[in-house]
Amino acid sequence: MSTTPRTRLSPEQRREQLLDLGVRLLAHRSLDELSIDLLAEEAGISRGLLYHYFGSKQAFHEAVVRHAADDLIAQTTPPTDGDPMERLLMSVTAYVDYVIANHEGYVSLVKAAAGGNESLRAIYDDARSALNSRIFREDVDGEIIPDTPATRLVVRGWSAMTEELVLAWIDDPGGVSRERLLAIVAGSLRAVVGIIPPG
Amino acid sequence: MSTTPRTRLSPEQRREQLLDLGVRLLAHRSLDELSIDLLAEEAGISRGLLYHYFGSKQAFHEAVVRHAADDLIAQTTPPTDGDPMERLLMSVTAYVDYVIANHEGYVSLVKAAAGGNESLRAIYDDARSALNSRIFREDVDGEIIPDTPATRLVVRGWSAMTEELVLAWIDDPGGVSRERLLAIVAGSLRAVVGIIPPG
Repeated sequence: MSTTPRTRLSPEQRREQLLDLGVRLLAHRSLDELSIDLLAEEAGISRGLLYHYFGSKQAFHEAVVRHAADDLIAQTTPPTDGDPMERLLMSVTAYVDYVIANHEGYVSLVKAAAGGNESLRAIYDDARSALNSRIFREDVDGEIIPDTPATRLVVRGWSAMTEELVLAWIDDPGGVSRERLLAIVAGSLRAVVGIIPPG
Repeated sequence: MSTTPRTRLSPEQRREQLLDLGVRLLAHRSLDELSIDLLAEEAGISRGLLYHYFGSKQAFHEAVVRHAADDLIAQTTPPTDGDPMERLLMSVTAYVDYVIANHEGYVSLVKAAAGGNESLRAIYDDARSALNSRIFREDVDGEIIPDTPATRLVVRGWSAMTEELVLAWIDDPGGVSRERLLAIVAGSLRAVVGIIPPG
């Protein structure tokens, strides 16, 4: 029960609010389960109004997934100080916690993107690519990783490994603690970069 | 032009021959492009006979993909002698060359499996799991990697990294040679295992 006075929202603010709700609903649901009907019910507004905001179910899913991707990128922003490895660990920790908290929706996005939904794939690829490039931007002096074609390739591979590690760990931790998982994810980047033979 | 005399094949041999042809056709085609019509044309037999052998397009695709997975597992069998790292490198080399030679079909299988085709996903997961477990079976003394829940997790991650590295490298090698790619793939397993903190 909010005690702040209700203010009239602009259509843009209202749309943002609906997207926030969509992202929250997606945390514990697959994309297939996230219907316009459900959002209408949860938001207490009509389906017609939602179609007015989003146009179609596909467009609504794209908007929610883009919003979720923006959230992921924002939440995994490393702190501005600390040494590069510490900052990488903070960022990786935020990524792992995001996937844990939004497991259902995340898995369904990976599925949709991998399975050939081209617009969701583009959003997924853009987010992945933003996360990967950030490593080079955050580590301009190359303390963790110098910027070369081989290390760019390795970061892509590491990023796929990270996703697989987290999803496999959620399915079956097998006694591996979250801290150990985080140490593996953060430490493996430098470990793999370290074995690249000179080109 | 074969000079061996034609012999009558058993239905089982004929089916195997058709599957071999299907796997060859899949190398440079996606699953969607691999139709019963195409196979009939290439094999010079009727569509009706193919339906007799395989039942449906979906069953035909499953049989071809299972055959391709068996090929992959057979082709990547490490040699029986040599030290564990050498044998791993040979096996990884065979995997990378398989993906290069069968790129189109491989990518379409990954897509189909990830995108929610449950029976193709099961075949893909079984093959992946056979390749991953083999590492522990081939390295019984734990020279590369001891068998623990954490290393089992790391092998799954490494396997996803390997697939991503190879597919990304095929799309854009960026001047990285096949030899360097192979060294990264083979060396990264031990590197990542090396940074797992004690549990």
